[in-house]
Amino acid sequence: MIVTHSSSSALATLGEFGLISRITSGVVAHEGVITGIGDDAAVTVSPSGMHLLTSTDMLLEDVHFRRSWHDPYRLGRKSLAVSISDIAAMGGVPRRALLSLAIPSDLPLDFIDEIMRGFLAMASEHQVALIGGDTCASRSGLVISVTIMGEQHPDKIVRRSGAQPDDDIWVTGTLGDAALGLKLVERGFDSTQPPCSQPSGSAKQDSRSQSGSRSLSGVEGADALISRLLDPVPRVSVALALTEAGLPTAMIDISDGVLADYGHIAEQSGVGGSIIIDDLPLSSAFRSCPAHFPVLPHQMALSGGEDYELCFTAHRSNRQKIVDCVKKCGVAVTRIGIVSSCAGVVAVNQDGTPFSIRNEGFNHFT
Amino acid sequence: MIVTHSSSSALATLGEFGLISRITSGVVAHEGVITGIGDDAAVTVSPSGMHLLTSTDMLLEDVHFRRSWHDPYRLGRKSLAVSISDIAAMGGVPRRALLSLAIPSDLPLDFIDEIMRGFLAMASEHQVALIGGDTCASRSGLVISVTIMGEQHPDKIVRRSGAQPDDDIWVTGTLGDAALGLKLVERGFDSTQPPCSQPSGSAKQDSRSQSGSRSLSGVEGADALISRLLDPVPRVSVALALTEAGLPTAMIDISDGVLADYGHIAEQSGVGGSIIIDDLPLSSAFRSCPAHFPVLPHQMALSGGEDYELCFTAHRSNRQKIVDCVKKCGVAVTRIGIVSSCAGVVAVNQDGTPFSIRNEGFNHFT
Repeated sequence: MIVTHSSSSALATLGEFGLISRITSGVVAHEGVITGIGDDAAVTVSPSGMHLLTSTDMLLEDVHFRRSWHDPYRLGRKSLAVSISDIAAMGGVPRRALLSLAIPSDLPLDFIDEIMRGFLAMASEHQVALIGGDTCASRSGLVISVTIMGEQHPDKIVRRSGAQPDDDIWVTGTLGDAALGLKLVERGFDSTQPPCSQPSGSAKQDSRSQSGSRSLSGVEGADALISRLLDPVPRVSVALALTEAGLPTAMIDISDGVLADYGHIAEQSGVGGSIIIDDLPLSSAFRSCPAHFPVLPHQMALSGGEDYELCFTAHRSNRQKIVDCVKKCGVAVTRIGIVSSCAGVVAVNQDGTPFSIRNEGFNHFT
Repeated sequence: MIVTHSSSSALATLGEFGLISRITSGVVAHEGVITGIGDDAAVTVSPSGMHLLTSTDMLLEDVHFRRSWHDPYRLGRKSLAVSISDIAAMGGVPRRALLSLAIPSDLPLDFIDEIMRGFLAMASEHQVALIGGDTCASRSGLVISVTIMGEQHPDKIVRRSGAQPDDDIWVTGTLGDAALGLKLVERGFDSTQPPCSQPSGSAKQDSRSQSGSRSLSGVEGADALISRLLDPVPRVSVALALTEAGLPTAMIDISDGVLADYGHIAEQSGVGGSIIIDDLPLSSAFRSCPAHFPVLPHQMALSGGEDYELCFTAHRSNRQKIVDCVKKCGVAVTRIGIVSSCAGVVAVNQDGTPFSIRNEGFNHFT
């Protein structure tokens, strides 16, 4: 491929093939990977009778992440985690990944090393093999593109389209934490130190702060909220436990807020639904956050992006089975609403009156 | 995913899901695609006993292409063609693709439509299904990321590692055309008109010209050379014919120049080789190009990128079989050298004396 600019960076000295060697030095062998990195294409084989699940995500600097917020180790972890989350949302077992990096000439080699350390740590936690990728120069910011492949028996795959009227609507974990974490880093909370080394409740104001003189000292659980944004945990074990038990009728991962993402289930299932805002699971860190944030907590929990929790529907006769099933996974599940037969998704208060919201998830182009 | 900038473009009005609908409006059903675009992951199934081949490529504006050179239709074609070429180089049948687009806010919707028209035309020509992807905003230039999947029986897959000493080295088609096409567009030859509507031999000088007042009027076959750069043809039918006949011992596609790419075969096969420069196949358009280009023709044919021809090795007893095999494909094959048992790849003149070259393929970071 033709590259039309030059640089005198460490990257230039290392060269493309030196970089590829460096990037792939931590790659280990995996079952089913016949030929990994180094040929025109990777060669893999899946057990007979399995269907292949494939998804891809692209992360751009200053669109999806900022280097001033996101330490490279957690950026590497997240770049794979968001793709693994897609496989989990289909009830699949993540198996292989391809990683492409477009690298600006000013990026230190250490930064790339740390991205790879994070990426491969996340891969190792989920037994995912890195089998290929691409590297090239970027004139304007780091681009990370990940393709993930997973497997599942055809009769176990969980789609968005299976929700039935009167099913319960469930979510894993807690909602809104990542969106609140974003508010914290936007307001200057230092997120670049590993959580363990950052003094609890410390605060730093910098040029990115939008709140001017407001101090964030004393924000309890700030690290936890920021960690939800910068280092999301794909809910693979919960998804697989539920899937193996045949419990979800439809499932999706929550990347754009539960209201928008349940909306995809509703649309593709030809149903509607109501979400009871008082039932939305909120973390203690979220609840204890200062009230001066201009967005109502429930709105943030409904519409905030990047929680990467699961939203699924299930027959109401399976409530106890679901609670029992997820117990061993160490992740809470919460019923937050009911699937309805009429189109449209509404957020309601406990008494059934409509809850007023301002938007329904992120639009990438507005 | 979080997007941190806003725009008031047509794209913003259309929104992410409107754009996805628009992009995917031309997608058609394919065998083996159980669930295509629209869920968390695509679901596909392959015939029993096939191995999966996977590869990925990323194309960045002003690194791999320029909007002022590359009309969007041919850009869409090329973005898939270069990936299909990787599957062909393994002897595989291309089957499915994922496409991610990071789109700057100033990009007209028509441009995206034309990219998709080109991408889907290339997909249709090779019966490739578009099964998924990602769209997001870009702050600084168009990014196109493509992942391709193909299939082949395990015992038919052709790797880089199978070349044997005394095998012949072959290439398909002609070499250096794309590199010369690049020189033409760099010097201001108008490449943005579809070839059929561009007057033969017409020339345009613009701000990109590096040759100042030099006129390129009368460059015969310029359209053909530029077309090799902007609209490369992946050699799928030749690759499959050779693979089905079990003829290549090793194969690669030529993206960085035959010297560098045969070098990968040599390295992975533990062999060397000599390439006879007088035997390199040059097109009539290439041969008739003005002599004022500062790069020697044979050097361009050896080291010029992006021809996307195939380089393969084969036992010398199979020469006639190879010629007969590719006859029906409408693509020439040429023997250009011999695999040697000692390491190192050399370019030699007809009399065996070394041919002096200046580089060995593109380095993306220099």
